[in-house]
Amino acid sequence: MASENRRPEMRKDSVNNRWVIFSPARARRPSDYKSKSNPNPNSQSECAFCLGHEHECAPEIFRVPPDSSSGWKVRVIQNLYPALNREIEPSLVENPNPSHSSGDVAICGFGFHDVVIESPVHSVHLLDLEPGEVGDVLMAYKKRIDQLRYIDSIKYVQVFKNHGASAGASMSHSHSQIMALPVVPPAVSARLDSMKEYFDQTGKCSLCEDQSNDLLIASSTHFISIAVDLGGLLKLMLRKMSLQLNNPPFNFMIHSSPLHGTPSQLPYAHWFLQIVPQLNGIGGFEMGTGCYINPVFPEDAAKVMREVCIS
Amino acid sequence: MASENRRPEMRKDSVNNRWVIFSPARARRPSDYKSKSNPNPNSQSECAFCLGHEHECAPEIFRVPPDSSSGWKVRVIQNLYPALNREIEPSLVENPNPSHSSGDVAICGFGFHDVVIESPVHSVHLLDLEPGEVGDVLMAYKKRIDQLRYIDSIKYVQVFKNHGASAGASMSHSHSQIMALPVVPPAVSARLDSMKEYFDQTGKCSLCEDQSNDLLIASSTHFISIAVDLGGLLKLMLRKMSLQLNNPPFNFMIHSSPLHGTPSQLPYAHWFLQIVPQLNGIGGFEMGTGCYINPVFPEDAAKVMREVCIS
Ligand SMILES: Nc1ncnc2c1ncn2[C@@H]1O[C@H](COP(=O)(O)OP(=O)(O)O[C@H]2O[C@H](CO)[C@@H](O)[C@H](O)[C@H]2O)[C@@H](O)[C@H]1O
Ligand SMILES: Nc1ncnc2c1ncn2[C@@H]1O[C@H](COP(=O)(O)OP(=O)(O)O[C@H]2O[C@H](CO)[C@@H](O)[C@H](O)[C@H]2O)[C@@H](O)[C@H]1O
Repeated sequence: MASENRRPEMRKDSVNNRWVIFSPARARRPSDYKSKSNPNPNSQSECAFCLGHEHECAPEIFRVPPDSSSGWKVRVIQNLYPALNREIEPSLVENPNPSHSSGDVAICGFGFHDVVIESPVHSVHLLDLEPGEVGDVLMAYKKRIDQLRYIDSIKYVQVFKNHGASAGASMSHSHSQIMALPVVPPAVSARLDSMKEYFDQTGKCSLCEDQSNDLLIASSTHFISIAVDLGGLLKLMLRKMSLQLNNPPFNFMIHSSPLHGTPSQLPYAHWFLQIVPQLNGIGGFEMGTGCYINPVFPEDAAKVMREVCIS
Repeated sequence: MASENRRPEMRKDSVNNRWVIFSPARARRPSDYKSKSNPNPNSQSECAFCLGHEHECAPEIFRVPPDSSSGWKVRVIQNLYPALNREIEPSLVENPNPSHSSGDVAICGFGFHDVVIESPVHSVHLLDLEPGEVGDVLMAYKKRIDQLRYIDSIKYVQVFKNHGASAGASMSHSHSQIMALPVVPPAVSARLDSMKEYFDQTGKCSLCEDQSNDLLIASSTHFISIAVDLGGLLKLMLRKMSLQLNNPPFNFMIHSSPLHGTPSQLPYAHWFLQIVPQLNGIGGFEMGTGCYINPVFPEDAAKVMREVCIS
């Protein structure tokens, strides 16, 4: 279809105040899951993310370690089917596009969409890596964000991971993604507004508050050496979740501040990594209200997760 | 587990400004799908929503026609595994619950959760009904909303339908649900704020604008006789979607105003029924940003849907 060659466009829905990225290129991306309902991926011999298949991928941005020729541990590459296009002139970004006639605002789909391959080996998942290797993946996110932050038209960077077909993954080889957007999504502004409101009312950071209570599962020594410490904590959480919930599909997202924030945001704009196991889907209620229904109280879930014994 | 007997509680997450209903009772509800990945439901002989099985259901609120003994067409009943509890004292609703120690606000889970059984026959779906019968279902929503609107502590009513296992449905017999909440969900306030902003800037209603452009699929004679006219339009849309997209799982939601609104909201607070076919799941990007990625431009989708020929 001709429309598959159209450039991506971002349109802001004036009813929901939500951006939608229209990206015909995305329709062509492959899936190595036989079907979304079959969680067992196809054979790895055809996987472009495996060691030795680098030429089947979109261009590399960097690898870890930097000088490794064949012995890389992590690769950050361009997404071959990017939702946003890094080659569109960013100066066009602020111009509303008059070519469509709904009430919505539209801008060109300028932005970056990268893939982080977390291991050269097809069958190795993030939780199988050593703490320091998980740390390497986290440091790769940081390095890429540090590059993207200097591009003026980029306003927000979303790091996320989809694991398992029902968490949306189309590739089973362990990987995550980084998208750099030319706008701050309204959900991000709303999150920061809510954290600010809590801070204005209580003088405390809403995330630091959560730590000091019965919702804590485990803690580590505050990233003094981030690569191993946070890596080890993430690995521990993923292993606890996998053991307790029978290796569920999951997503994780790094929730950070918009780029170019102000110092006054520092007391409340705490970044965090959220892990969401996909246990039950959602339905029309959640889609309509943005309100969630959970059969398990969080303090009960935290207790169970604390008690999972990792040998 | 003892916690399954706990009353539901609503907690407002101070990071995302989002309400979560914690409802242990929900964990017990049955599913007549063998598994979420198998879209074929189990046999109907055990279905509580079928004609003749009324005694297996939670109490009836009303039926259509009102006086029918066995020959009902639509039944509105209580949900046997309600996310919110109609028997909690609503006066407790405004008191934050100090029994948990996170930074979040908590209130009792007072509210109503009903099921609308759309047909007495197991295999009949909404799109199989006559326009007037679809209209009966819509009028049942209206009648129930009109009852709920007079309960002071109820602030918002969400009508929704889940069709198919991957759209979240646990029961395959055609039905929808009505939930009455003691709070206005932030996503609803945000939607109205966004519609108001559009109205303030343009003097026009954002939904009426959409109608006059290339996104229109079909229209009907503006609900002069709502029961048949809107019923026929909904049936037409569901049939077009089923034919064009190969009978996909879907959700629909009625997006309305909070109860007890003000007359000044009338020019922009247009209600609408949104139908969402579940074609691709979402992933971490959408969960993190609230921004959606769509491989199909809406004007292309509308064109295809206009052209589907309904015999
Ligand atoms: N005998 C009986 N009498 C009365 N009621 C009965 C009953 N047997 C079952 N029910 C109720 O019937 C309802 C059927 O609803 P759906 O199939 O639309 O999805 P459900 O609410 O289970 O969950 C989906 O929708 C909700 C809300 O969107 C999401 O939270 C969830 O993740 C998703 O799977 C259930 O709520 C159930 O409690
Ligand atoms: N040879 C190659 N070189 C480089 N890149 C390659 C490649 N082959 C495939 N890719 C890219 O690799 C990525 C794999 O990502 P995931 O498996 O996490 O999910 P995907 O992005 O497909 O969609 C999920 O996540 C997105 C974002 O949340 C949702 O929109 C969607 O519904 C959900 O299924 C794809 O984006 C694909 O374009």
